[in-house]
Amino acid sequence: MLTDEQRNRVCVILVRARNPNNIGAVARAMYDFGFSDLRIVNDYPVPFERARSAVDAASVLDEAREFAAVAEAVADCNLVVGTTAGGKRVQEHPMYPLAEGGGLVHEHLMQAEHRVALLFGSEKTGLSREELTHCHWTMTIPMFDRDGVRHPSMNLGQAAAVCLYELARASGPVTAASPLLAPAEDLERLTLLLGELAESSEYTRRHPANSGEGLLRRFVRRMQLEPADAAMWMGIVRQALWKIRSEKTET
Amino acid sequence: MLTDEQRNRVCVILVRARNPNNIGAVARAMYDFGFSDLRIVNDYPVPFERARSAVDAASVLDEAREFAAVAEAVADCNLVVGTTAGGKRVQEHPMYPLAEGGGLVHEHLMQAEHRVALLFGSEKTGLSREELTHCHWTMTIPMFDRDGVRHPSMNLGQAAAVCLYELARASGPVTAASPLLAPAEDLERLTLLLGELAESSEYTRRHPANSGEGLLRRFVRRMQLEPADAAMWMGIVRQALWKIRSEKTET
Repeated sequence: MLTDEQRNRVCVILVRARNPNNIGAVARAMYDFGFSDLRIVNDYPVPFERARSAVDAASVLDEAREFAAVAEAVADCNLVVGTTAGGKRVQEHPMYPLAEGGGLVHEHLMQAEHRVALLFGSEKTGLSREELTHCHWTMTIPMFDRDGVRHPSMNLGQAAAVCLYELARASGPVTAASPLLAPAEDLERLTLLLGELAESSEYTRRHPANSGEGLLRRFVRRMQLEPADAAMWMGIVRQALWKIRSEKTET
Repeated sequence: MLTDEQRNRVCVILVRARNPNNIGAVARAMYDFGFSDLRIVNDYPVPFERARSAVDAASVLDEAREFAAVAEAVADCNLVVGTTAGGKRVQEHPMYPLAEGGGLVHEHLMQAEHRVALLFGSEKTGLSREELTHCHWTMTIPMFDRDGVRHPSMNLGQAAAVCLYELARASGPVTAASPLLAPAEDLERLTLLLGELAESSEYTRRHPANSGEGLLRRFVRRMQLEPADAAMWMGIVRQALWKIRSEKTET
């Protein structure tokens, strides 16, 4: 069982949720299972008044914060987990069934400084490829597979309820805590620096298939960097950038 | 994991559900997790057209059956499980947390002839005391308890999704199957016969506090009767009734 303090280190992030009723339903599920940190990423103002009609959701919705981009919404999180309907789409991330993913989240919450983000995509399309690049890994709710029939996708409010139930229910390992991971804002800064280095070192020109921001972002997340290592990497990359640029000036 | 055949022996029964959107959401969750037997108990015709708008729910809703009373809806079921929000209401039934209840349901589904009913009550009030008398036991989704604050109750569609997820996920014991239990219609017949016997034997007059249909119904469910034992009990009660009535005629 999660402690109150651990629940407070879990945030639910809704990306491009369209239907205020669904936002309200997610807030209600959070209230039911004792979570409170709701973040909304949208390119338009969310009609919170309509979502507020959801029973019991008021306290969660009152505290909800809006962000313009995923990178900003996850900035203070050490583990970013995407949710996906699974199905046949190509997976560029490790994908865990919910019960197993819930255990891993527990492991991270045992690290006292870790904040964990659960990302949910829009009702129609789920999380985009670009949005998923911000995630360390994904988890999926195992659904019933009918041969030859379109893979089912869950209603947003129901999917959030099932994920939060599993999180509240599951018990992780009692002994081993996850190592402390660098927060997402450091990883994002490293990603951008690495992009600059790839560009100015002409790596991008020679290996165009290995470049691209999304690819670099996933590459950085896969390393599970601790804060000191992330800082060291940034130092190295910055130094290399400085060197390249200063030589360019000399010539 | 439940087999397809086991999933087909689970039915979801909605009692007095008021909101067609919720009926649609329950049907969608059933579809997502591979269940198909939906039964509706209502004293008015259900506006299925509106519920049918729910994505993926059409096949489940097309097959849904309507009943006028709980006793008829559960008649062919060997295990009847009520769902409840828990809280402070007096519990007259054994109540299990969902994960444990899910394991017990698995045990019953290993008995090849068992059909299991999951009952959900109305959005506002849940299952009534009378409706609960039809249940062998209840299960509840453990929710976060805030001191001094009203106990939360889940949205119907979300509660159904969480219960069906747990049922689809949980794995019960592999070896021991539940003993075959008498179907609910036999238990209901025995309940009514027992009521007649209590009345005509003047048990009701002498022990009014121990009578009442609800009390007798729970009493019969607690015994976990196998079909032959239920039949034997009915035989004994019928015989006693006959004896009492025939002596009345003589005098």
